[in-house]
Parts: sequence; structure tokens; C-alpha cells
Amino acid sequence: MKSLIVVAHGSRRDESNDEVRRLTEALRAKARREFPSVRCAFLDLVAPSIPDGIDASVREGATHITVLPYFLSAGRHVAMDIPNEVSEKQRQYPQVNIRIAPYLGAAAGITDLLLSQVR
Amino acid sequence: MKSLIVVAHGSRRDESNDEVRRLTEALRAKARREFPSVRCAFLDLVAPSIPDGIDASVREGATHITVLPYFLSAGRHVAMDIPNEVSEKQRQYPQVNIRIAPYLGAAAGITDLLLSQVR
Repeated sequence: MKSLIVVAHGSRRDESNDEVRRLTEALRAKARREFPSVRCAFLDLVAPSIPDGIDASVREGATHITVLPYFLSAGRHVAMDIPNEVSEKQRQYPQVNIRIAPYLGAAAGITDLLLSQVR
Repeated sequence: MKSLIVVAHGSRRDESNDEVRRLTEALRAKARREFPSVRCAFLDLVAPSIPDGIDASVREGATHITVLPYFLSAGRHVAMDIPNEVSEKQRQYPQVNIRIAPYLGAAAGITDLLLSQVR
């Protein structure tokens, strides 16, 4: 079973975290067939953490987990922190395939999406 | 003449600012017909600032300027800081039409873009 985990930074502003939760719900509705399990997790400040999110997906029966960084730039969080947390969990669950998708800012379609905002 | 200004936060990591500059170049190539002038500006830490970016567009002959916030959530920067800087410049240049586009995180297409990253 495939599980998708959207990972955001986490904010002191609850509205920002709610934006991530709403986005996750929209993804859940859209990706239902491909990913029967869709959740969000936060790198900092907000629960669930990335390890807790992975644990929850494994408990649900996930055999493949895709971690999707909801970040615009390839800073330390994307390059180091998320991979570190994921690889620790990969060691804990060798029977589960956990991969990290390219972060949002790396998406080829982002220019078109930006242009859709100005039209 | 229409000018587009992509506004990012600005980072201590130069690579992150370079990502914004590369994105701006990609937008310039793609939006050439609609926006003969495309540049980036930064809210903090990095030049040019938003006021400097608007000044540059006006000097180039812009009659319509669209400020596009390259932000994922509607925090203080999107809700307060960018509008404040823009409205000051609007007062300075009443003959120029300056508007702020919805921030990236508000784009309806963002779920599809995220799904394109995991496929």
C-alpha cells in the first residue's frame, strides 16, 4: 500500500499549518487511487513530526512511502534535515520502501503555475 | 508596458536566492509577450528590495506592475509587509497601476504540481 506524506516546515501561525492541512486534504481527494494514505507532517514546531508521520503510515500498512517536501528552496531542511530523519526511519523499517520526492520549488511546472496567478 | 516582479523572502544562503533568480529568468523567457519586463525583488536580506524593484520597473517605462509573492503561506509577509511596501510606492507613482497577485501557495493548481513531483 502506498502512502504519501507532505512535509512542511511548521509555523507558529496556526493558519499557516491549516493551509498545509487543507492542501493535504485536497491531495487526499485527488490522489486517492494512487495513494490510499495521504497525511502531512512537520519538520519543526508542529505535530506530527516526520518520524511520527512515517510511523503512522507504517501502522496503516504502508509498503511504499513517498515523502514530499513542501518547500520552495533546497536549503538545509531539504538537503539535510528531511533526509536524515527519513534515513533513520528507513533503517527502522527495512521492509518498507521510503523515498523522498523532489521538493516543490524544483518542479518544472512552477513557472506555469506562477503565470496562472498573474493572469 | 507591463512589468512582473517576483517577490521572494531572501535568504542567507546564496543558492536559495539563485534559485529565485533562475526562476525569474525562466519566467522572463516564458512571459515575454505579456510582460516585457520581468525581475525579482526580495523582502529581506537581499537586494534589490521591493521598493528598488518597483523603481527599476518604473524607470523602464512600466505603466502596469504586477507583484507576485513567491511564498507558500499567507503569513505576515504576504498579508502585511508586501502590501505595505507596495502601497507606499503606489502613492509615489499614482500614474502607475501596481497590483499584487495571489501568493503561490494560494494557486489552485498546486495540488497537481505536487502530484507531478511524486509520479
